[in-house]
Amino acid sequence: MKLYEWDFAPNCRRVRMFLLEKGIEVPKEECITSNIVLKDPYLAKYEHAMVPMLELDDGAQIGEALSIWIYLETLHPEPPLMGTTALEKATISAWERRAYDEGMVGHAEIFRNSHPKFVDRGLPGHREPVPQISGLIDRGKLRVARFHRKFNEQLSRNKFVAGDRFSVADITTITVVDFGHALEMQIPDDCPYVKRWYDEVQLRESVRQSLPTHLPDGSPMPVAA
Amino acid sequence: MKLYEWDFAPNCRRVRMFLLEKGIEVPKEECITSNIVLKDPYLAKYEHAMVPMLELDDGAQIGEALSIWIYLETLHPEPPLMGTTALEKATISAWERRAYDEGMVGHAEIFRNSHPKFVDRGLPGHREPVPQISGLIDRGKLRVARFHRKFNEQLSRNKFVAGDRFSVADITTITVVDFGHALEMQIPDDCPYVKRWYDEVQLRESVRQSLPTHLPDGSPMPVAA
Repeated sequence: MKLYEWDFAPNCRRVRMFLLEKGIEVPKEECITSNIVLKDPYLAKYEHAMVPMLELDDGAQIGEALSIWIYLETLHPEPPLMGTTALEKATISAWERRAYDEGMVGHAEIFRNSHPKFVDRGLPGHREPVPQISGLIDRGKLRVARFHRKFNEQLSRNKFVAGDRFSVADITTITVVDFGHALEMQIPDDCPYVKRWYDEVQLRESVRQSLPTHLPDGSPMPVAA
Repeated sequence: MKLYEWDFAPNCRRVRMFLLEKGIEVPKEECITSNIVLKDPYLAKYEHAMVPMLELDDGAQIGEALSIWIYLETLHPEPPLMGTTALEKATISAWERRAYDEGMVGHAEIFRNSHPKFVDRGLPGHREPVPQISGLIDRGKLRVARFHRKFNEQLSRNKFVAGDRFSVADITTITVVDFGHALEMQIPDDCPYVKRWYDEVQLRESVRQSLPTHLPDGSPMPVAA
């Protein structure tokens, strides 16, 4: 197996943190140039033109962070990160999806539609130009505000995002919050339960070790204020 | 169990088609007014303010179509719609996600940002105003064009979207194509493999029976040209 990635990309971190939680070691290859485009050999290899991608020894390619998780969870069920009972699995999936749709997409809309290196690259995976849309910066902020409110409420009632156990819902939520730090957006002061949870999960080795080392411009990755 | 839905909503159809494939009967409640807003009792019941939502007999709520599928697939594994081996599960998940991110989100961007009843409702699940963004109509069309190209290529090599068996990847893709019909967008002429597959899946009872009956304006749901 080999994991193709871009160290900064939040979706790649979702996979790295999962691997660390499971104790699975997989060789990794960084696929991005200093100009923040995917390298040509990778583009030639993988038609979907996105990272992460897990390549199996027989050449099979698994794209999408969620799908890589599903593959690894099936082969390495312990410790379970995607639930064991039907209701646990569904609850973790729903909260992971909310973290993604509200937090991750919100931050990605802000990042992709404002960053000078992403002019005409408003969406990942497109080989033709996709113009940036400045209105998505404000819409992204609305999504992120809803994310913080909703997750503060949820974390006021639960130790972890989807209940009593650490799960992929936490992995995506941690990735979202640290993506925010990269955009100079902090956990709002009126979200004390998100802060309590965030401080607690910092104690996990998987969280610290999976943090990207650098921002896209090459400066060090910022930490929480 | 009870399924709360809006008959036209593509994400609700994903659940209806799944239930029909499994042969599971669940009572359904339509939650939308003639003005296309969610009814007050439903909004009071379900904080996420979206459909579909599956309510269990003990009151537990499962939101998100994917999470409802996971719940039902775990309790009713036959016939499998989400794969059985690790690689099958991951492959189905990845293609289902592509159908969603490229096709469903593309159509939703066109629909939400152009429909006169969705002024200030640019995103689902927000209780405060979210302005429409007209630039997302063209961006949505770019996404949908990529969806058609990519799925035509995939269906040139495979009977179904994710391989030899009908799966949730087909369910989402069918829903995307018919959402396109509701927006007067047909399968492009240069996508013969999508057309071949679409004609074949029309033979399934689950596909026909799950089709919405009406457009949001009350006129009959259109069929393929």
